[in-house]
Amino acid sequence: MRMTKVIGNLEDMQHDKEKVEWIELDWEELNKRILRKTTTTGREVAIVLDEQGLRYGDVLFHNDTSTIAIRTKLEPAYVIKPATLTEMGKVAFELGNRHTPCIIEDDEIIVRYDQTLEVIFRETGVAYVEAEKRFNEPFKYKGHHH
Amino acid sequence: MRMTKVIGNLEDMQHDKEKVEWIELDWEELNKRILRKTTTTGREVAIVLDEQGLRYGDVLFHNDTSTIAIRTKLEPAYVIKPATLTEMGKVAFELGNRHTPCIIEDDEIIVRYDQTLEVIFRETGVAYVEAEKRFNEPFKYKGHHH
Ligand SMILES: [Zn+2]
Ligand SMILES: [Zn+2]
Repeated sequence: MRMTKVIGNLEDMQHDKEKVEWIELDWEELNKRILRKTTTTGREVAIVLDEQGLRYGDVLFHNDTSTIAIRTKLEPAYVIKPATLTEMGKVAFELGNRHTPCIIEDDEIIVRYDQTLEVIFRETGVAYVEAEKRFNEPFKYKGHHH
Repeated sequence: MRMTKVIGNLEDMQHDKEKVEWIELDWEELNKRILRKTTTTGREVAIVLDEQGLRYGDVLFHNDTSTIAIRTKLEPAYVIKPATLTEMGKVAFELGNRHTPCIIEDDEIIVRYDQTLEVIFRETGVAYVEAEKRFNEPFKYKGHHH
């Protein structure tokens, strides 16, 4: 089955949640335009979109008997908790320098688990915890990107 | 004249400041190993070092009659003054993502003047001022670098 368009989002649609057939993606995949996946009921699907930027709940197919939608997995992550402006600046700079997708909000940085990042945490002395997170929005790449 | 070694630094040496012949570098050049320059007295010099990392005051030649040393120029710069941890994180991430050399200390970020950076300042809403700065230490590139 081939799907080329986001029809809507579950948030805005009348739907019976039990009928939803899910395509499970990880965070990075929300930015992909072309994906080949198996749904939670075992159906093989090919996603071919014109634009990137899938979100949690995006519906790719819908009729009377079935609804196929996107959901993201719970993923291991770090929640970084800088104590000072300087500490925040140093950690964020290094993450940017490595082009590491991250969410910066509420005085914290959330990144996906990646042991090689722990060097940065050690060098800057920043506090962090490991946690499970669901990333529902794609990371918006800005500026220099390759 | 060809110079291949840092002999010492003016800070640590007995010297008559009036006799110093300067090689004027900009910030980025402190990281270069190979440079061709004209000193303040008009002498042409070739610098060929084994390692990078020149600092303000580094002496490359010294005898009874002359001392040739490095100094950095005053350069136009921005001093960025984030109001919150989140603001600091967002600005620093974008600067890192662009591999922009910067000094992060005392709750501020200092970067060389570059109008294209003002997009970042506007998007994040961060406060900044323009200033003249002398960068005396090379920027230490870490992690991903190309
Ligand atoms: Zn419906
Ligand atoms: Zn890069």
